[in-house]
Amino acid sequence: MLQSLSHHFKCGSSFGLFLSHSLSSVSEEDLTHFRSFLPKSAVLTDAEDLIPFNEDWLKKYHGNSRVVLRPKTTEHVSKILKYCNERRLPVVPQGGNTCLVGGSVPVKDEIILSLNSMNSIRSFDPHAGVLTCDAGCVLENLEVFLAEKDHIMPIDLGAKGSCHIGGNVAANAGGLRLLRYGSLHGSLLGLEVVLADGTVLNEMSTLRKDNTGYDLKQLFIGSEGTLGVITGVSILTPPKSNAMNVVFLSCDSYDQVLRTLEMAKKRLGEVMSAFEFLDDDALGSVLGHMSNLVCPVEERRSFYVVIETSGSNKDHDEEKLMAFLEEVMGDGIIADGVLAQSETQFKDIWALRESISESLNKKGAVYKYDVSLPQSRMYDLVEDIRKRVGSQSLITCGYGHIGDGNLHLNVVFPSFEKKHEEILEPFVYEWVSKEHGSVSAEHGIGYMKPKVLHHSKTWESIRVMKTIKDALDPNGILNPWKVLPEKIQ
Amino acid sequence: MLQSLSHHFKCGSSFGLFLSHSLSSVSEEDLTHFRSFLPKSAVLTDAEDLIPFNEDWLKKYHGNSRVVLRPKTTEHVSKILKYCNERRLPVVPQGGNTCLVGGSVPVKDEIILSLNSMNSIRSFDPHAGVLTCDAGCVLENLEVFLAEKDHIMPIDLGAKGSCHIGGNVAANAGGLRLLRYGSLHGSLLGLEVVLADGTVLNEMSTLRKDNTGYDLKQLFIGSEGTLGVITGVSILTPPKSNAMNVVFLSCDSYDQVLRTLEMAKKRLGEVMSAFEFLDDDALGSVLGHMSNLVCPVEERRSFYVVIETSGSNKDHDEEKLMAFLEEVMGDGIIADGVLAQSETQFKDIWALRESISESLNKKGAVYKYDVSLPQSRMYDLVEDIRKRVGSQSLITCGYGHIGDGNLHLNVVFPSFEKKHEEILEPFVYEWVSKEHGSVSAEHGIGYMKPKVLHHSKTWESIRVMKTIKDALDPNGILNPWKVLPEKIQ
Repeated sequence: MLQSLSHHFKCGSSFGLFLSHSLSSVSEEDLTHFRSFLPKSAVLTDAEDLIPFNEDWLKKYHGNSRVVLRPKTTEHVSKILKYCNERRLPVVPQGGNTCLVGGSVPVKDEIILSLNSMNSIRSFDPHAGVLTCDAGCVLENLEVFLAEKDHIMPIDLGAKGSCHIGGNVAANAGGLRLLRYGSLHGSLLGLEVVLADGTVLNEMSTLRKDNTGYDLKQLFIGSEGTLGVITGVSILTPPKSNAMNVVFLSCDSYDQVLRTLEMAKKRLGEVMSAFEFLDDDALGSVLGHMSNLVCPVEERRSFYVVIETSGSNKDHDEEKLMAFLEEVMGDGIIADGVLAQSETQFKDIWALRESISESLNKKGAVYKYDVSLPQSRMYDLVEDIRKRVGSQSLITCGYGHIGDGNLHLNVVFPSFEKKHEEILEPFVYEWVSKEHGSVSAEHGIGYMKPKVLHHSKTWESIRVMKTIKDALDPNGILNPWKVLPEKIQ
Repeated sequence: MLQSLSHHFKCGSSFGLFLSHSLSSVSEEDLTHFRSFLPKSAVLTDAEDLIPFNEDWLKKYHGNSRVVLRPKTTEHVSKILKYCNERRLPVVPQGGNTCLVGGSVPVKDEIILSLNSMNSIRSFDPHAGVLTCDAGCVLENLEVFLAEKDHIMPIDLGAKGSCHIGGNVAANAGGLRLLRYGSLHGSLLGLEVVLADGTVLNEMSTLRKDNTGYDLKQLFIGSEGTLGVITGVSILTPPKSNAMNVVFLSCDSYDQVLRTLEMAKKRLGEVMSAFEFLDDDALGSVLGHMSNLVCPVEERRSFYVVIETSGSNKDHDEEKLMAFLEEVMGDGIIADGVLAQSETQFKDIWALRESISESLNKKGAVYKYDVSLPQSRMYDLVEDIRKRVGSQSLITCGYGHIGDGNLHLNVVFPSFEKKHEEILEPFVYEWVSKEHGSVSAEHGIGYMKPKVLHHSKTWESIRVMKTIKDALDPNGILNPWKVLPEKIQ
């Protein structure tokens, strides 16, 4: 087989390990081959059609792919990868393309392998609560499907209307329910994955417990499409709660946010299903953007907290919630608060929290940092950055899953420019590293952060990651230039 | 360096992949080397001292190791493995040696690397609930330590008085609390692991969320010491509940057990922390063995259920429990029941469940099968086996974590004999495979089950496991002859 070598990259040199792959570019012959076994609509080459696939949601990363393949079956994916592996054609797997670190768009002219034509639910077992489906199912569609069966997805996030479950797994998405239902490493029961050479790995277990050899599926959770293409998912779904409540609270200091969290853990215990916080800049951004939403409390304050409970007994949950509210308000920890009284109020409060990201995106170029930090130090980072950027930024705000120790720091500038980035990086990463935090709590590494991976992982670990990458994808065709740094010490 | 080649094994032949490692035996020179950097008490070579390390808890597997090494530090472990790797000396890592599938004892004369001198608690963060400790800490000691801090371990099992947390992780122990707190893949936050070549992998994160590269620690959970030696553990510990209740119920049919489970899920919801079942043969065995325990209900029946609740509000939990009990007793699903009224009764009911394994072990040679199955089919396996073995076995009983779909089938014969094994195997494995179950739900593969791994995993998956084993332990020194079959198709 002919190999065009227009993209030959080689890195490393004085370093111990180095990437050294010869990657090809797509030829007319390749397109003819893909058309030979894929339906016509599954091979997109029209420049106009390719735009949304080549660009990320933040409009920060732009690729130059010439072709999008949209397989309809696992067998299609297998055939595509087997061919690409033999031809050394690089491939970027793409789900809903909601990745925030440039992991789901091409860097150069990689083939885009979109999973959006693989979106069938395969089965649901109401007794065990186990759902199996194609990787291309949109998260919200699964949620709607399960609602009828009195179950819910164990993850929920702002991008649910677009993101795919396969992408969620590939990115190890965290989101709003992690506090209660844990990470995908715990709730995912099985995966179907196509390896770089086209091998279909059928690990679609529906069992809660299965200690038969290495738990291979775990490797693909959070590997961002660099080790294999996820085509099927089997997941444990919690039963829908009889009672759901949400409260919106305001307070004057970050310390009061933390005290509210401590109290909530004690009083709400097993029924607390989310504990989120946002600062007033984040709220201001949402209110400016979404004309249908209003501030739920009378006066604006420095911080707000959203707490959700979900349990099996309405009366019990409300009693717990009331006791908690009396305590935090009685102690003066909370300035004001609102308990949603209707389904609409419930949705509106959640909409405030979930629309922050979208509203900031409308304002300008958003530099997003998604970090894990000790809760006590979390907001200090936001304040340090605010001082550092001064009036140069349009908005600097902090919000996130404080119950999990996960802060979203967002800084909005008029445009993406090197000089803005240089104010923020590596400052943010070094700050986080010093506090033993994580430079990526839930967004992953993608194309944005390979160079800063070493701030959260040791070089020994990064070398082992590389060993595994080389073992599973020896030609380096899967999502190249992502996750692992080119230079490894 | 000289290599003695007294143990040269080579397998495979007509199969695609094959093991082919030259492993050495320990020489006097090796012992001198170990003594050069380890304390005197850390190198055991006296035949008498070695007996308990060479034999498993069931007395089913017997090794012929000449030396036990008991490192005190991670650096010791690193030095030992580096040397063993260079010398091709095989090593079996050993924790509390409570493995039920022969995974923690030598097959031949492997060096036993015991972690029992590494048993310090490293840190505890009461706000985040994160515990870090050495791998050799006994599970029960950690539980006692945490009790003072109002936290609990997320796992609990019958062997807690002996098993090590490192061994729990290596075996991906399930146990009694999985129903509520999920698997170790979710609750484990970090690991320190020494690789075959002596590299120390420091993945001791204390963060709940950390998406920076591949989640390497996941690979070692359940790898049974074949990929690395776990020396440190970081784990999320749930807060201790204010209220704990346990009930013991009796019923006449397995179908009633299942109906009780359905009802409990609905009525007890988020406060249910365990749902276990045992049959009357299992109860009979315990009562015959433990003279201090009595049957909690008046009449013996065919099946018993143990349900535990734990929650933040005593009154709420009791109300939920009462409503549930009224319903199952009113509907005639349950024949009789007892709610523990004191700490002693609470412990006694749990002791009944937790002592089954020990009591059977006292009666004779126990063939233990730990399988996952669809709940509806679970007890059919016990009945089919009872018919098959007839009067040849002393006891055939079923019990286990039915809430997780995990059955323990135990068959007791007067002694371990090939003819007994042949009645049971491969019959049990084929039965489970036909039902798409797992041939090992929580006990692992060890030395007992590599040959039947393919009943639960595809050959594609097994080949990928082998690829990973070869990448991380190219000389095959870590726990050889365990987990992976010698012949791989």
